[in-house]
Amino acid sequence: MTDDLPNPALLPAGLADLLPPDAEREAALVEAMMGVFASHGYERVKPPLLEFEDSLLAGSGAAVAEQTFRLMDPVSQRMMGLRADTTPQVARIAATRLGAQARPLRLCYAGQVLRVRGTQLAPSRQLPQVGVELIGGAAPAADGEIAVVAVEALAAVGVAGVSLDVTLPTMVPALLDAAGVDPVLRTRLARALDRKDSAAVAALVQGQDAALAVLPGLMAATGPADGALAALEAAALPESAQAIAENAAAVLAAIAARAPGLRITLDPVEFRGFRYHTGVAFTIYGPGMSGELARGGRYVSQNDEPATGMSLYPDAVLRAAPVMAPKPRLFLPVGADGAAFRAEGFATVAALAPDDTPQRLRCTHELRDGAPVPVVTKD
Amino acid sequence: MTDDLPNPALLPAGLADLLPPDAEREAALVEAMMGVFASHGYERVKPPLLEFEDSLLAGSGAAVAEQTFRLMDPVSQRMMGLRADTTPQVARIAATRLGAQARPLRLCYAGQVLRVRGTQLAPSRQLPQVGVELIGGAAPAADGEIAVVAVEALAAVGVAGVSLDVTLPTMVPALLDAAGVDPVLRTRLARALDRKDSAAVAALVQGQDAALAVLPGLMAATGPADGALAALEAAALPESAQAIAENAAAVLAAIAARAPGLRITLDPVEFRGFRYHTGVAFTIYGPGMSGELARGGRYVSQNDEPATGMSLYPDAVLRAAPVMAPKPRLFLPVGADGAAFRAEGFATVAALAPDDTPQRLRCTHELRDGAPVPVVTKD
Repeated sequence: MTDDLPNPALLPAGLADLLPPDAEREAALVEAMMGVFASHGYERVKPPLLEFEDSLLAGSGAAVAEQTFRLMDPVSQRMMGLRADTTPQVARIAATRLGAQARPLRLCYAGQVLRVRGTQLAPSRQLPQVGVELIGGAAPAADGEIAVVAVEALAAVGVAGVSLDVTLPTMVPALLDAAGVDPVLRTRLARALDRKDSAAVAALVQGQDAALAVLPGLMAATGPADGALAALEAAALPESAQAIAENAAAVLAAIAARAPGLRITLDPVEFRGFRYHTGVAFTIYGPGMSGELARGGRYVSQNDEPATGMSLYPDAVLRAAPVMAPKPRLFLPVGADGAAFRAEGFATVAALAPDDTPQRLRCTHELRDGAPVPVVTKD
Repeated sequence: MTDDLPNPALLPAGLADLLPPDAEREAALVEAMMGVFASHGYERVKPPLLEFEDSLLAGSGAAVAEQTFRLMDPVSQRMMGLRADTTPQVARIAATRLGAQARPLRLCYAGQVLRVRGTQLAPSRQLPQVGVELIGGAAPAADGEIAVVAVEALAAVGVAGVSLDVTLPTMVPALLDAAGVDPVLRTRLARALDRKDSAAVAALVQGQDAALAVLPGLMAATGPADGALAALEAAALPESAQAIAENAAAVLAAIAARAPGLRITLDPVEFRGFRYHTGVAFTIYGPGMSGELARGGRYVSQNDEPATGMSLYPDAVLRAAPVMAPKPRLFLPVGADGAAFRAEGFATVAALAPDDTPQRLRCTHELRDGAPVPVVTKD
């Protein structure tokens, strides 16, 4: 293959065609999850794929600035970005066009996002994204609702047995601030916490401010939410960290009230990977090895409005969800009317030429005496 | 407003947010139309929004090359295009990844397309597009099916009383070729036909080859399909034009057999606006002033495969479709369980804080003695 004769089947790295039946399955999953969001009062918005980079990369958009494709708008001669995340756009809509609507505002969205580069673990550069945002409500019950609604959306498409991982990305910074830690120790502690290296953390906090003494205990408490919460309550926390712990307890209580059976873990000292979150943050993992299905949490939206939200990844949900049976395909001879069979749930496939046969058209059923019967495959 | 302080609500020209309830309505229309396509055996594919421009602008893609945003792929250092049309991508999939599957192949798609510039009449630079492609079938019944399925999809979302306009974009070129017309007369005739100026056409064909003598009669015959077909049959056409007329008659017979009540017009001399079509072409107009809802026709796909297809424009369909009633919104006091009401079709909106009231949350219903009753607006 040379540059002059590129392989026409070749797509850029990280960009792929979704073929039958996966494209249909993904679309069905997306609409089923959006249906759950609508049933909880979340109203759909559809921002454009492209907008001026000033607005696209404002607020939480700054976190994906490096991952955003940019192009020149020939009309305005200004730079536009191809969205890498939908949350900043929903924040813009909430602050501007829906700025006068009473709070809290519940919005949802479904669409594609594009990224300049994939990673080794996540090579895709185009990802479907669906999500919910609750803007203008600071109550712990708002965070709880976001988590519960996301879990319900996953259950609606057959993904049960998920695990909700709760983190408090502001906890470690609050402890480090309270202790007045110098930049060198701060960096070392952050690295040790990131590596989950409890021996290193214990050694680093030895002889330091009392606010840091709780770190080894909080690391050890990571696990099922009840135990981790109890450890947080028992710890001698400085005031700022105490407020974070109390808020986490209230959010977890709100979740437990609405989704009593949900498996929840709490990691009080995890803080990486949530670049703009200001409160409780969530990751939802699928059962078994199916991986991360959703991510979200509390943030500050435009005009300093409190907000919380969750993004779900339909490509990952597709891998975790059970395969639905495709519609049976019924062969229709030339001139036959298929309306009644379509109403029964068949996909009718009409013969258009003499060599169109049930086998050739991959039909599962054909008509015999006017009734659908399974196609017998010839040996 | 200066460049330093851009209005955050400002979007690039031709790019817009779709807000509640329109975003929800458009998504519902798209999935309902895709459901009709699936019920006729059309299988969904989802090509990426970006691909290498070599493949994106090949074949029928050349028609939208000027309208295609281009960007450099930092991974491959090759140019990519942001699709301005989905048909070329479906042609690529059919020729490559689905190349070994038996023909005809029935595929459908739904997604966004982007254009570098809008026009005065069609200012949007991002358009939703849904469509069907039938690849590897040359039968007139294939063209008929494409038209009938598109009309059925529109009917499924409440758009009835549409008109199917049939044109034969190869007819005028065939007549001009048969007459061996010189380039100057060719240009003059094309302009006069394009302006629908029958006096000018009559004057220009005076004394020319017999193949051109039919033009004034064919212009006059434009209108309801039966009359126009009769005029085509009666006209003394050269062989190439005769074949086009016979094919048109067969396509129209196939449509009449599957959609007897459909209003069809035929313009045998219209040829503009169908830049890559090689046979019968279609435009579907909505009732009243709702305009063009769909466009398509026969073309040559990759590997010279015969193909026919139709693109529908959900933004136009949204304007033509009846407004559906939104879900009633039921206010849920703190702690109330809404599952049973969601199953009944309510959107439940949970109170999260003391100042959340039914009025504030724009609820239509509230619970009284455990049952939903309409919210009484206070005077």
